[in-house]
Order: sequence, then C-alpha cells, then structure tokens
Amino acid sequence: MSKTLHHVVIVGGGFAGLYAAKSLGNGPVKVTLIDKRNFHLFQPLLYQVATGSVSPANISSPLRSILRGYKNVQVLLEEVIGFDPQAQTLKTKGKELHYDSLVVATGVSHHYFGNDHWQQTAPGLKTVEDALEMRRRIFMAFEAAEKEPDPVKRQAWLTFVIVGGGPTGVELAGAIAELAYATLKQDFRNIDTGEAKILLLEGLDRVLPPYPEDLSAKAEASLTKLGVTVKTRTLVTNITDEIVTTKQGEEVEKIAAQTILWAAGVKASGLGRVLAEATGASLDRVGRVIVEPDLSLPNYPNIYVIGDLAHYAHQTGNPLPGIAPVAIQEGEFLAKYLQAKVQGEALPAFSYSDSGNLAVIGQNEAVVNLWGLKLTGPLAWLIWVFAHIYYLIEFDHKLVVMTQWAWSYFTRNRGARLITGEDGRVNQDMEPLAAIPEQVGKA
Amino acid sequence: MSKTLHHVVIVGGGFAGLYAAKSLGNGPVKVTLIDKRNFHLFQPLLYQVATGSVSPANISSPLRSILRGYKNVQVLLEEVIGFDPQAQTLKTKGKELHYDSLVVATGVSHHYFGNDHWQQTAPGLKTVEDALEMRRRIFMAFEAAEKEPDPVKRQAWLTFVIVGGGPTGVELAGAIAELAYATLKQDFRNIDTGEAKILLLEGLDRVLPPYPEDLSAKAEASLTKLGVTVKTRTLVTNITDEIVTTKQGEEVEKIAAQTILWAAGVKASGLGRVLAEATGASLDRVGRVIVEPDLSLPNYPNIYVIGDLAHYAHQTGNPLPGIAPVAIQEGEFLAKYLQAKVQGEALPAFSYSDSGNLAVIGQNEAVVNLWGLKLTGPLAWLIWVFAHIYYLIEFDHKLVVMTQWAWSYFTRNRGARLITGEDGRVNQDMEPLAAIPEQVGKA
Repeated sequence: MSKTLHHVVIVGGGFAGLYAAKSLGNGPVKVTLIDKRNFHLFQPLLYQVATGSVSPANISSPLRSILRGYKNVQVLLEEVIGFDPQAQTLKTKGKELHYDSLVVATGVSHHYFGNDHWQQTAPGLKTVEDALEMRRRIFMAFEAAEKEPDPVKRQAWLTFVIVGGGPTGVELAGAIAELAYATLKQDFRNIDTGEAKILLLEGLDRVLPPYPEDLSAKAEASLTKLGVTVKTRTLVTNITDEIVTTKQGEEVEKIAAQTILWAAGVKASGLGRVLAEATGASLDRVGRVIVEPDLSLPNYPNIYVIGDLAHYAHQTGNPLPGIAPVAIQEGEFLAKYLQAKVQGEALPAFSYSDSGNLAVIGQNEAVVNLWGLKLTGPLAWLIWVFAHIYYLIEFDHKLVVMTQWAWSYFTRNRGARLITGEDGRVNQDMEPLAAIPEQVGKA
Repeated sequence: MSKTLHHVVIVGGGFAGLYAAKSLGNGPVKVTLIDKRNFHLFQPLLYQVATGSVSPANISSPLRSILRGYKNVQVLLEEVIGFDPQAQTLKTKGKELHYDSLVVATGVSHHYFGNDHWQQTAPGLKTVEDALEMRRRIFMAFEAAEKEPDPVKRQAWLTFVIVGGGPTGVELAGAIAELAYATLKQDFRNIDTGEAKILLLEGLDRVLPPYPEDLSAKAEASLTKLGVTVKTRTLVTNITDEIVTTKQGEEVEKIAAQTILWAAGVKASGLGRVLAEATGASLDRVGRVIVEPDLSLPNYPNIYVIGDLAHYAHQTGNPLPGIAPVAIQEGEFLAKYLQAKVQGEALPAFSYSDSGNLAVIGQNEAVVNLWGLKLTGPLAWLIWVFAHIYYLIEFDHKLVVMTQWAWSYFTRNRGARLITGEDGRVNQDMEPLAAIPEQVGKA
C-alpha cells in the first residue's frame, strides 16, 4: 500500500453507507464514514419501538463498534453541510475534508405532500426520537381515555388513524390492534381497550401496493380479522388536532381521532438538493438524486449516491424501491466497484437482485413474496422473524431481540411501553406544574 | 365485602408505594396508586443505563402491567399537588380524590447543598431522563475528544469527575473506567481512551461510608486497580462549565473536566413539604417527613409516609437509609398493618430487618456485607448479580437483562450507548443547523 491511499468519504451510516464501509473494511483504501448520529438504526423494526415491543438500543448499534475491526475505517460524528466537487472537498460545521471518492447516502424523511404543518399532529417514523414520540402518544392516549368522563371525547382518545398502507402502516396498524385487543385488555379499570378503533387509510386500491394482488388481499383480510378497519382509495384532505378529513370517491368523512400516525410518503434528505446544486445532477419529484448505471453522478464519476437517496431506474425503467435490500446491495456493489477502480480494473454496472418482499401483520401473521413463493400465516411469520434476525446478527443484538420476542410471544406482554421525554412526567393535556420552591428543613 | 370499601390512596410507584399496592392487591380494601409516570423504575440499575449497558425499558415496568391482576387496584397517571387532611382529600391538577387512608411515597431528588446552579453542569441520576442525559454526555465526551486537536482541551474531554463516593458514585466510576479502558479501547482512531482520567471525589474519609471500614478499603483498592483516582476527604467548593474546584484539607485544586456527574446527596421530594404544611408534620434537614413508629403522621393516624421520603428513627436513633430494602419492607409492613386495621385488629409498630449492603464496582468485582458476611471479588459480584435478578424477577425483565449481562460479560461490549435526544443529532458544541428549505424536484 502506498502512503497516500485513495480516500473514500461516505456520508450516512444507514444500510447503504454502512454496508459500503464494511465492505471496504481492510481494503486498499482509506475510508471515512460521516454521520450525525453515533449509531446505525435498523429501521425495519422501528415500528416495534413505536409500539413498545423493543427498546431503541435493541435495534441500533454504535457505528464505531460495528466498524472497530477495520483499521482503515474512521468514523466521524459530524453533520455535512456542503460540497465543492471541483476541489473534491466537503464541508461540515467544524471542518473541511478532502475526498478522492465521495459516497452520499443520507436517505429520506417524511413527505406530507405540501402539508408540512400536519407533521405536528401526525408524526412520521424515521428516527429513534420519532419512534419514542409515537410510543408516547399511543400509550398516553389510553391513559387519557381512562380519565375522560365524556364518552365522545373518550372514543376520540381510543381512535388511532394510520395514514398510508405500505409495510410501515400495515405493521403499525397490526401492532396497535394487538396492543388494544390483547396486551392492554386487563390493564385499565374505566375503559375497555377493546372499544379502540384502528383505521388504516390508503389512497390506492389496496394495502401493500408493491406486492402481488392476492397477497394484498390476504393482508387486508388479516388486518380486518385483527380488528383494523382498512379503508382503501381513501385520501386524507385535512388533518387538525382532533379531526382527520378523508375523501373516498365523492364521500367526505370526518374522523375524530387523537392519535394520527403518518406512514404515507417520503422525500429525499435535504443533502440531496445541496449535492445536486453543487454538481448539476437532477432530482426526481421527491428529491432523490438521479444516478448513472454505476450509481455515480453524470458529470462526476467520483461522486456516488446510494440507498434511499438514489433514483436508479436503469434496470426496469422504474426507480428501485427504498428498502433495505436495495441499499445493502448498492453499498456492497459500490465497495467492490471502488476497490476494482482503485486497482485499475473495471466492473460492470450495478444490477439489483430482487428476491421479493415481506411484511408482518401481527403475531403468527405475515405476508411473504420471496423467490416467487407467496406465503401467509404462521410460516410466513416465521420467515419474517428469521429474515430479520439474520440481518440483526450482523450487529450484536440478536440474542436480546430474540429473547424479547420469545418472551412477548408467550406472555403477549410488551415491556417497553414507557412514556418518556419532556411530556412524560405530566399529563399531556395539562400545562407543566409550577416548580415547587426550595424548602428549608424544619428538623 | 361491603359496598363502601376502605379506600387506600398511594402516591408514588417507587419501591415503597408499589410494594404497598401489590401487598394490598386482592385485599379487603380499594386501592388507588397515583404516579406521574406510567412505569416503575428499578433505580439500583439506573447507572447501567447511564453507562450504556442496558436500556431504560429493561429496568422499568409499566405500573398497570405489574398490577393488572389485582382488580381492587386502580392506577392513575396524575401529579398530586395538594392535600386537605380534614376533608380527607388530595388534589391533582385534574381532580379531587377522597381517601380513607393516605400513603405518600414520592421519594427524593438530587441535593446540591445550596448550589442548585451546579445541576446544569453536574447532572444527578434519579430518573430515566437523567440517565439518558448522563449517557449522552459520557459518550459525546469521547466523540468530542476524538475531534479535538488541542491536547489540553482533549484531556478535559477525557476527564470524568464523579462527585460522591456512595454506591451510585462507586458504580458510575467503575463502569466509566471499564468503558474507557476496555469497551471503547479499539473504537477511536485519534485518541487513546486509555488516557481518560476518572476521578471519584468523596467528602468523608472513605468511599461507601455506611459499609464496614475494611470493605470500604477493599472497594477503594479495587477502584484504583480499575484505573479510578479516588480522592477522599475532598470537598467540592465550586463547579463551572469546565472546572471542578476541590479542597482537601488546606489544599485547593482545580480539575479541568468536561464531564461532571453528581452522586453526592439527595433531598426529599417537594410533596413532603406540601404534606407537612397541611398536617403540621416536621421535616428533617433534607426535607424528609418525620414519622411515628407505625409510619403515620403525629396527628393523622390515617396518613402515612414511607420509602425515601420518610424519616424513621425509632429503631436505632438514626433515620433508616434511603435504600430499596427499607422501602420494600415499609411498603409490605404498611399493607399488612392497614389490612389488620380495617378488620379491627392491631399490629405492632414497624421494624426494619437489616440484612446488609452490597455495591458493585466492575466486572467480577463487588463488595458485599450480608448477614454479617463480608465478601469481595467474583463471589461478591455473583451475589450482587443474583440479588438484583431476584428483585427484577418480580417484574418481567429478568430474561432480557440476564441475556444482556451474559452477552456483555463475554464480549465486554455495551450495546446501549446511543447518543439520543435533542442534542443527539448535532455536535454538542455547535448551534443547530438552519433548516434546509423545502425543495422542488427537478425531474
């Protein structure tokens, strides 16, 4: 190895960036992975944090800990704010960093389709903080219902609206149904949690739109059996603090609900726009950066965008979906591609190997479409469980998560349903108590 | 049972209040347990959250879940703000509640001996939020050191001062030493975490002052072996953002440290003062309520104070210490006492059965003083582990915590070291980044 190793700078420690860094580990390059958080988050299980099944740390791993064995990889806890592609540098608040190859993988956040003010009332689910906020709202709603004497207001506290029938929406709806109809059934004295209403709203004609039609139908049937009211072809036209207004064809409905959860859409991380402005790259309608067949930018063969932030449409004409397998394959491809390039070799362009989809609905219930195989029921659920454990094994949490799942499976309990944070100490609907002045002891 | 059951209202779901409620479960009384949080916290392991070993949910349990089997027990998520002992009512922000017997068990918080402004710089460890804040500061300090080019400033980031040599201070110092000298050793590229300094300051002449002198000496020797600098007879005279000023005899020292943790003193919860003003009860110098031999208040035989908030000195002349076994025994005693009283019987006054003390220092190292038996080393550590698992068994977390401990034992890893919360996303020493304006897609 020469003294001046080729320097690969990766921005973002999600699936795409992390797998790129891991695959470059101990390779003939120097790697810097920059993230504003100190941990990788296993986002596919984030809905389990939001519904009180596992703790954030059970589905996260410190980036330094994952990468500690690769002495050529350095982790930097910084937020990137700009790029200079001519000088081959990027800027963080604290410093400027030179790169030979740049990989941007900062993912996506929620998209409210021009109604960003809905975010306050209908939070989305992308970060640990998002999940803890959802968890706080869900469990606080049952507490508020328990104390509410007015039956109409009580029902609004017991009504949960999930906007968006993709995997996250389906998983949230199923988990909240299990909470209300099983886990919490014996916990309250004034309310019957069985009276909770869980509504799943989807704008298209079926839930899980990317799945085969018969699996969507089975998923809807399973959700209905769990007690979820599924409304397809239903658009949300307004969200206020207590009312969701929907439109199904010509029919307008107003749903009184205190808990509204957003799982409807994503838009690219703002860093995509910053990069596009610096490089002249094009963005698609949700702000994803349109990449070349090798995941690079049109005029900058040493700048790459991977993961959810990338719009890659060279394989099927449609952009690849924003799911973990795509991000992982892109990260692993890019690592090989860069190592070959540094050694003067050339590799063929990226190609995604699609093995299918899987989503969980509830205990013993999932839909799986893998390698042409379509499954539902307990076997699909087992496949879902083991697929997720397989990926978690890469980090260090499989033992704990497995124990927790086994435990919840037999007890149907959910231990992680703490109401924490700023509002965890007082009632949600009350102003904070005035501080009690310092006392002077009498004895 | 008659229709108008005797109504016992318990304020506070810590060890004292929870064990009282459990022991009254399915008894001939109606019980309402009021807490401002929805969970019981197993405080003796809170230092493990602060140092990244376990998650908050692993050492907490929802109160409703613990008490769901007792149909005569109701949980109310409210904050109590006042008492009217003549009318036998208490006030929360939302409502007024009548009681026949009142049990107050709201515990203690940090005490800065008249220097409350130190709290901002030197946080204490009583709540889940406290622990997450300590965790954030500890792990952010290593990140800041990694980025700091100035060696003097870097050493200040690598210096951890723990004020107070009781069990919490000893446990924190031992855990941070293990973090710096073992867990994180391979994680950084610019710093050697082995250069971290961990100082434990104690005002008295030895650590663990309530323990036998030889055990204190062994604890100090073990801490020193782990790399902790123990300073006894050392008083803290000032704390600023980066400097701890100490006085040892006549010698004044200024220690440059970015991370200062407070484990030095507690004062009673403010509700003790509110209760004392309403009932004329006396408080001791840290605000604890002085109770009668049956834990009741002098002029109000139907009002009881138990747990850390109670000053009970009828047994030895000194108040019982604020530890879990005292709180548990007081809660269980009171439950029996009240049930007897309701049935017209009388029981003898409370008496504490002291089986001893135990504190952990690090892996394979603890000090135990139980039933006259004094132990140190691996056997003491095992006793400490099993004693804590025994109490955790009462809730539902033993499996998860045991797995996590076993895992950390073999890997020396600590998986729960996430930097989260408001400041988790950006660098601690930087202003938050301005929001990136909404983008318009180009494609």
